[in-house]
Amino acid sequence: MAEKIFRINMGDLSVKIEDVPAALQGLGGRALTSAIVGAEVPPTCHPLGKYNKLVFAPGLLSGTRAANSGRLSAGAKSPLTGTIKESNSGGTAAQLLARMGIKALIIEGVPAECQFYALKVTSAGVEITAENELVGAGNFDVVEALEKAGQKDCGLLSIGQAGERCQLAANISVKDPDSKFRSLGRGGLGAVMGSKGVKYISIDASDAPKSVALVDEEKFKGAAKTFAKALIDHPVCGSALGAYGTNVLINIVNEVGGLPSKNFRSGQFDQHEMISGEKMAELIEARGGKAKHGCHAGCVMQCSQVFVDKEGNYVTSGFEYESIWAMGAHCCIDDLDILAQADSIMDDIGVDSIEVAVTIGVAMEAGVIEFGDGPGFLKLLQEIKDGSPLGRIIGSGAAVTGKIYGLTRVPVVKDQAIPAYDPRSVKGIGITYCTSTMGADHTAGYTVATNILKSGGFVDPLQKEGQVELSRNLQIATAAVDSTGLCIFVAFAVLDDATALPAVVDMLNARYGISLTGDDVTALGMSVLKTERAFNQAAGFTNAHDRLPEFFVDESVPPHDAVWDFSDAEIDEFWNF
Amino acid sequence: MAEKIFRINMGDLSVKIEDVPAALQGLGGRALTSAIVGAEVPPTCHPLGKYNKLVFAPGLLSGTRAANSGRLSAGAKSPLTGTIKESNSGGTAAQLLARMGIKALIIEGVPAECQFYALKVTSAGVEITAENELVGAGNFDVVEALEKAGQKDCGLLSIGQAGERCQLAANISVKDPDSKFRSLGRGGLGAVMGSKGVKYISIDASDAPKSVALVDEEKFKGAAKTFAKALIDHPVCGSALGAYGTNVLINIVNEVGGLPSKNFRSGQFDQHEMISGEKMAELIEARGGKAKHGCHAGCVMQCSQVFVDKEGNYVTSGFEYESIWAMGAHCCIDDLDILAQADSIMDDIGVDSIEVAVTIGVAMEAGVIEFGDGPGFLKLLQEIKDGSPLGRIIGSGAAVTGKIYGLTRVPVVKDQAIPAYDPRSVKGIGITYCTSTMGADHTAGYTVATNILKSGGFVDPLQKEGQVELSRNLQIATAAVDSTGLCIFVAFAVLDDATALPAVVDMLNARYGISLTGDDVTALGMSVLKTERAFNQAAGFTNAHDRLPEFFVDESVPPHDAVWDFSDAEIDEFWNF
Repeated sequence: MAEKIFRINMGDLSVKIEDVPAALQGLGGRALTSAIVGAEVPPTCHPLGKYNKLVFAPGLLSGTRAANSGRLSAGAKSPLTGTIKESNSGGTAAQLLARMGIKALIIEGVPAECQFYALKVTSAGVEITAENELVGAGNFDVVEALEKAGQKDCGLLSIGQAGERCQLAANISVKDPDSKFRSLGRGGLGAVMGSKGVKYISIDASDAPKSVALVDEEKFKGAAKTFAKALIDHPVCGSALGAYGTNVLINIVNEVGGLPSKNFRSGQFDQHEMISGEKMAELIEARGGKAKHGCHAGCVMQCSQVFVDKEGNYVTSGFEYESIWAMGAHCCIDDLDILAQADSIMDDIGVDSIEVAVTIGVAMEAGVIEFGDGPGFLKLLQEIKDGSPLGRIIGSGAAVTGKIYGLTRVPVVKDQAIPAYDPRSVKGIGITYCTSTMGADHTAGYTVATNILKSGGFVDPLQKEGQVELSRNLQIATAAVDSTGLCIFVAFAVLDDATALPAVVDMLNARYGISLTGDDVTALGMSVLKTERAFNQAAGFTNAHDRLPEFFVDESVPPHDAVWDFSDAEIDEFWNF
Repeated sequence: MAEKIFRINMGDLSVKIEDVPAALQGLGGRALTSAIVGAEVPPTCHPLGKYNKLVFAPGLLSGTRAANSGRLSAGAKSPLTGTIKESNSGGTAAQLLARMGIKALIIEGVPAECQFYALKVTSAGVEITAENELVGAGNFDVVEALEKAGQKDCGLLSIGQAGERCQLAANISVKDPDSKFRSLGRGGLGAVMGSKGVKYISIDASDAPKSVALVDEEKFKGAAKTFAKALIDHPVCGSALGAYGTNVLINIVNEVGGLPSKNFRSGQFDQHEMISGEKMAELIEARGGKAKHGCHAGCVMQCSQVFVDKEGNYVTSGFEYESIWAMGAHCCIDDLDILAQADSIMDDIGVDSIEVAVTIGVAMEAGVIEFGDGPGFLKLLQEIKDGSPLGRIIGSGAAVTGKIYGLTRVPVVKDQAIPAYDPRSVKGIGITYCTSTMGADHTAGYTVATNILKSGGFVDPLQKEGQVELSRNLQIATAAVDSTGLCIFVAFAVLDDATALPAVVDMLNARYGISLTGDDVTALGMSVLKTERAFNQAAGFTNAHDRLPEFFVDESVPPHDAVWDFSDAEIDEFWNF
């Protein structure tokens, strides 16, 4: 079955099914979304206007039985950062689209009238229908309504109230195997979907094969087995992430003084144990939740979980370190039950939990509520849901909120909130924040692996030496991994186990009948970064935007009294490849 | 008396009185503020942080008896646009500073603690005192309190509630000869003053000479007489501006289809006659107001006025075309009494009337209030005064408000609101909006003079031909005029009367004992623009920022169905000098 591109024009409500042009045939995931956005979206266009395009693409290995290959990429010009953006997520959509032979969904144009629509994607095409009943609904109501209407096995991409209002912190929610949500979280892609008048996209793969065709089944099977073993044998991938989730990091990052607390005033949070992965596992065990859970079929790490309340009732899943850090250490709220409740609300209204929680910490800096005010935090989420002026402010992210309140201590790069590692005491990640093509983003080049977890060697997080090279190598590798549909956490195994990368290359070759080498994978990563950088430069970004806010230079952070001490020239060396 | 620079450091509350370095000696007004900001402010710094500097400088002719020479320049990195900024205003401060021999006041640093201060400037130095009583007060209460305390003859630079809160639309108010206010309006310089903890600056020139020393008094007197005559003889400077104020433009610009109405949906406003200069003059005459009024001593044009209510009570002065357009045609409010009341409130809370009124039109686009809702407009101003979340939004200007509400029809360039001439039907001013070093700013290169008023010839406003050259010539000339302390409206006489420019050059030569030529004045203007452009480029601005919002390209505007049709290359040709 030849793969196709489905192109949906919301301006005239038309659909085209296109052959995949030669230039795009070897691409998937991020490589594909960035190639399409780079080629088709005018870099200076308004991100919420008719010239922007929202592109969804499963990874190159999605739909196969490769472990952890079920990630979906979404790309567009970001309304939050103004840069090109790729965001990726688990859930069921990537595997369904891949099985249906849909290499990419491109949504372009904006509706002529103020009207929301539902898109129903099948192998045969896309049905576009006006949607009125679910407008104003949260994501949980959307999934419930669709499942009641018989779409239980369909994939779902949905926006909540925040996305409908084109709020800059809005995400796109992706239904997971338990009918909960994973998120295409960062960069405000939910606002782009909202601007195109699309409330949700359901994906019906009922007439598609159960798995994608493989050119060399035997070779694939062997490589997949090797790859899965490398994951399972790795102490992070196969053990720590499953036991404590990503939240295993709270105590570790606190210990090294890299856990930003009280809007980046300290690298340690007094109450870190109250919000740690260990504490979370203890509560889940005592209350009868579920400690391990995968965000997509075929995940062998199971870093998600089901968090329940004191009565044992479901509260949230996919309760991640980054969200817990942002609500907890950053906002000084030490009650996991409040954080879990907030996590669920953010899934429902459809906002990026990093952006919104960092923003609330900024609002705390402004005195809107006090640091540590958990009920106040929940109340602000209600304001976002209601669309009140204060909710509109918070829903617009940290950079806008900082402007509204006239603050200087606003932790953003290219207007995107800095996540859960202090760049002064984990310097490699600071280089990633500065130079990523998408604003501050830890996943773009996760140097924490080497700076703190000692995966792939060790580069002292407090010293400048080696950080630019580390970030560069990881950003290149990540751009490639994000194109395969593999979860970024496979990187631990790839860094430490010599069998892992060849197994990935073998799987790609066996899937498509090609003959890539490891160098080709590196070249792909470089090419993706350069495509993205070129878009940004044409949009008006220069080296002057590859900088941390000045308070990181001027204020030292305990416990190491570290400052951000890279010169401009040292940072700019990043792009020398 | 040798001129001095007064440098005030709000970080340690110290003051230095410095000799004027050789490089700055020939500069004044905008040339001086931009030179100092360009040399001393790191282009990528946070505009509200300790590295930004706020510079006040009287023009080169301020303090002399040259007609219309009382303009004060203020410069800084703008928190609204992120570019370098110079804003200038009438009022009494420029002449007082010049008489005291103060070539520039530089305010640097930010207070260590959250505390507002008052600065009292005398020839001997600057007294810095903690200010508590007037914190939270509007500008009218500040002037009243100071005058009650015996400072009747002092100059005053003050911020209202908006400036205290570092709102991006905050201006700096300058006391005029009637103890009312003129504004250093655009670019959010009031927020910079607020960030430095300065509530107001009083200027006591009681021990200074009544006029600045002139190297050649006789030559100056002759040139000044020629210059004043050129102004008085010109139909715009000597007649129209005095009769109807700047608001004479409403009917004229409406007639040519360049008056943006309902957030740039039309180039004509049905109710234009209700808000016109003619209507205003009629009301003033009938009610016993004052039709002519100068914003500073020595003004021969008298384009200001005293607008009174039905009972004859004072409401506002300096009731300008740009403000009346923004509140009236742009927001579709046709009641001059409401507009006058709003104008006075904006003076009191200290916000740029263009930025805020354009922003309210954007909020109308979002449905916050309806187009035409005058009482709603007043209520939103009260929200700014109160600092409510909605007030914070509006006080942050049009670009932020557009982001908050997810809009695409947001008339800004470099995040500054586009003023009162539609760039599609007055194309020269569109080139100025795009290329000005300070975001959309009609005063930077007022092509309306030639496009509509046929001053200095005629360039058809609907055709592309000649607009780039016209805007370039006027931007260069304006940068020079803004350095002299002369009001920009002298440009009409300079463009049309061959005696005017030589008279200006003669006055400069007689004042300083130098021998400038007309070419030197042009060279000064070019040099100012290049200094400003270099700052912006180092701050991260590129040609990609020299663009109008895409809706001006996509939507044609009645009555001419004009669109913005310049290519990028055509716009970029501007900087080819």
